[in-house]
Amino acid sequence: MSFIEVAADSDFPIQNLPYGVFSTKSNPTKRIGVAIGDQILDLSVVKELITGTHISQHQDVFSQQTLNAFMALGRPAWTETRQVLQKLLCKDEATLRENIALREKAFVAQKDATMHMPAEIGDYTDFYSSKQHATNVGIMFRGKENALMPNWTWLPVGYHGRASSVVVSGTPVRRPWGQTKADEAKEPSFGTCKLLDFELEMAFFVGGPPTVLGEIVPINKAQDHIFGMVLMNDWSARDIQKWEYVPLGPFLAKSFSTTISPWVVTMDALKPFFIENPKQDPEALPYLKHDDPYTLNINLEVAIKPEGSSEEHTVSKTNFKNLYWTLKQQLAHHTINGCNLRPGDLMGSGTVSGEDAGSYGSMLELSWRGQNTVPVGDSTRKFLLDGDEVVLKGHCDGQSYRVGFGDCRGKVLPAAKLDF
Amino acid sequence: MSFIEVAADSDFPIQNLPYGVFSTKSNPTKRIGVAIGDQILDLSVVKELITGTHISQHQDVFSQQTLNAFMALGRPAWTETRQVLQKLLCKDEATLRENIALREKAFVAQKDATMHMPAEIGDYTDFYSSKQHATNVGIMFRGKENALMPNWTWLPVGYHGRASSVVVSGTPVRRPWGQTKADEAKEPSFGTCKLLDFELEMAFFVGGPPTVLGEIVPINKAQDHIFGMVLMNDWSARDIQKWEYVPLGPFLAKSFSTTISPWVVTMDALKPFFIENPKQDPEALPYLKHDDPYTLNINLEVAIKPEGSSEEHTVSKTNFKNLYWTLKQQLAHHTINGCNLRPGDLMGSGTVSGEDAGSYGSMLELSWRGQNTVPVGDSTRKFLLDGDEVVLKGHCDGQSYRVGFGDCRGKVLPAAKLDF
Repeated sequence: MSFIEVAADSDFPIQNLPYGVFSTKSNPTKRIGVAIGDQILDLSVVKELITGTHISQHQDVFSQQTLNAFMALGRPAWTETRQVLQKLLCKDEATLRENIALREKAFVAQKDATMHMPAEIGDYTDFYSSKQHATNVGIMFRGKENALMPNWTWLPVGYHGRASSVVVSGTPVRRPWGQTKADEAKEPSFGTCKLLDFELEMAFFVGGPPTVLGEIVPINKAQDHIFGMVLMNDWSARDIQKWEYVPLGPFLAKSFSTTISPWVVTMDALKPFFIENPKQDPEALPYLKHDDPYTLNINLEVAIKPEGSSEEHTVSKTNFKNLYWTLKQQLAHHTINGCNLRPGDLMGSGTVSGEDAGSYGSMLELSWRGQNTVPVGDSTRKFLLDGDEVVLKGHCDGQSYRVGFGDCRGKVLPAAKLDF
Repeated sequence: MSFIEVAADSDFPIQNLPYGVFSTKSNPTKRIGVAIGDQILDLSVVKELITGTHISQHQDVFSQQTLNAFMALGRPAWTETRQVLQKLLCKDEATLRENIALREKAFVAQKDATMHMPAEIGDYTDFYSSKQHATNVGIMFRGKENALMPNWTWLPVGYHGRASSVVVSGTPVRRPWGQTKADEAKEPSFGTCKLLDFELEMAFFVGGPPTVLGEIVPINKAQDHIFGMVLMNDWSARDIQKWEYVPLGPFLAKSFSTTISPWVVTMDALKPFFIENPKQDPEALPYLKHDDPYTLNINLEVAIKPEGSSEEHTVSKTNFKNLYWTLKQQLAHHTINGCNLRPGDLMGSGTVSGEDAGSYGSMLELSWRGQNTVPVGDSTRKFLLDGDEVVLKGHCDGQSYRVGFGDCRGKVLPAAKLDF
């Protein structure tokens, strides 16, 4: 228990302590903080108190404007920092609790803070690791026969995404322009996206020292390069995607925006929520095979808040455990060719869909390509409308607490006016 | 003419003046230089001499360790800097010529310099803009009927590549491990790449201030965001690519290494070599349509130098004018969805292949998927062997000078030994 009050349904009890980057009106410098209840502990203020074998020589990482330097330190430093922070924030510990002057400088109410990108993302990769999602999309785009490609059960399919357009929760998203082609049309046409979609994903940040080009991270070391996780909305323009994606994959259909939640929940905080991995058939090749549980039991949901409404209407509920490939397998696969990793790289899970229709992670699937309507309060949707705010949430249920991710939100703005 | 002697066949006469980042044994700090003949003019040493309306306030960009800050300044500053440097280096100009002490500090022989990455690449995009290449690959991977996908003539197809593994000329390239599956095999197998290939490409660096997410660069402004060009070898593992690339595009088949030449040749230097654009049929949609010539007449060639040999054997000769989509069209397309650009972003052309077999830009095409052998001196190749050094070269022929790119080389190392 912390001396900072934490509501029973808070995402941020002392068991969580996610890292983020924030600023305030009175101090617009970006700085690193840890969420506790509805407060933020400003680590740039208390960094001298963060001591230990691994971290004492590196307190400067807490004066940076991104988490990259801290991410680069590696697991021993991460775990040590977590232990120190849990002790500092504990109600039995006087150091911070009794130092009123320091407390006044060190704590900021989350409602007074602006959150920023937690890290500078060198490269952003997106996987495609939910079998149900891959199957659903496959049926719609390529028919039942070719739904799941033969490679899908052998390797975690993924692609490189655009790093520059990954933005933090709260950033509005502009409906993109682009080329689309209706099935019956002879030629493509140019216009605004008509089939704008969200994708419910999670993503992890790579940590540890940069790997060297040519270095392979073996699967039994993969966890040393996984720092922590965020929610991610991989906004998608389905009509643009359909016309552009063969043969080189999604490009402009995705690169107009990808939104992540601001608080990075560490793998140490998620440790109690690892469950047994799904059985893989065929058996994974040796370089992808691991037995330690690394599948996460994280409740996920998506809500839509229409323009002018104050209510968020849930459109999907699912669980991250639906992932077929584990994060360890994704990371090991990514480096098997010698591709180098840098701390701050972001790797998305792919859309997380469960088995039943209420657990699909995109409007494409929920409306089954627009064949069905999805209730959103008093209205319905097939795809997203201008003014819709999409809200992703996620949390793990502990015994008497929850480890949550806060939310990941973005509002759809009308397409830009073209002045050419 | 410069007071620095420039051989008649030099890639770097005073008409060129490409920018690069170098260091020397005696001064290992990375710094920005300009190539002239077989020398480098160290701009960190002469930056106070680089004056003018647009650049005087920004001389600090020449003390950076990458070109990003200079790239961010925009075309007026680039053009002005070029004019100043041409004047400084001119044989009629005494300022530098007569200042022996300064000359001794300011010039470094290229043979004594180590070249580094010219810029920090935020995002790397690779296009697929040679019609002949796309057709050749399409025939081999998907058969004659589906060779050129219907979207290809309507938009510059492209995909996001991996930025972390873009390396500078001279960096060796390790043969990757990965999954492959023979057509006749029931299951994939794990092993080292057997069909290692080069891809002869060129790439341009994005310049100008970063664009804002949601901002569209109209085609008639696209040139303001194109700083300069390099040669690029997009190393490819054909067997890995074939198994992994459907439906999300190439991933590990490419991300193990991409090599670029160190000298960035500016668009101002390339201006005399713009020729009329190829006729596009169907006509480009309005957002992609431009009439100003932006097709470049650049002679390109690929040579292989086998292990132990001192000779480079040319295996392909082609020309950059074979590109169907212009760089302006690539850039305008990239931003039409609002995707933001940052100075230092790299955009590859895709493999440049001409019409006849001797002008194909990859071993895949030269050996027609291994059906034919390609002579390399006394031996032959279907794909690359360990120890092969691949050398790309490119130059434009002026009246009595050439504007060249230097070379882009990389030697294939045997696959890593796995210790797991």
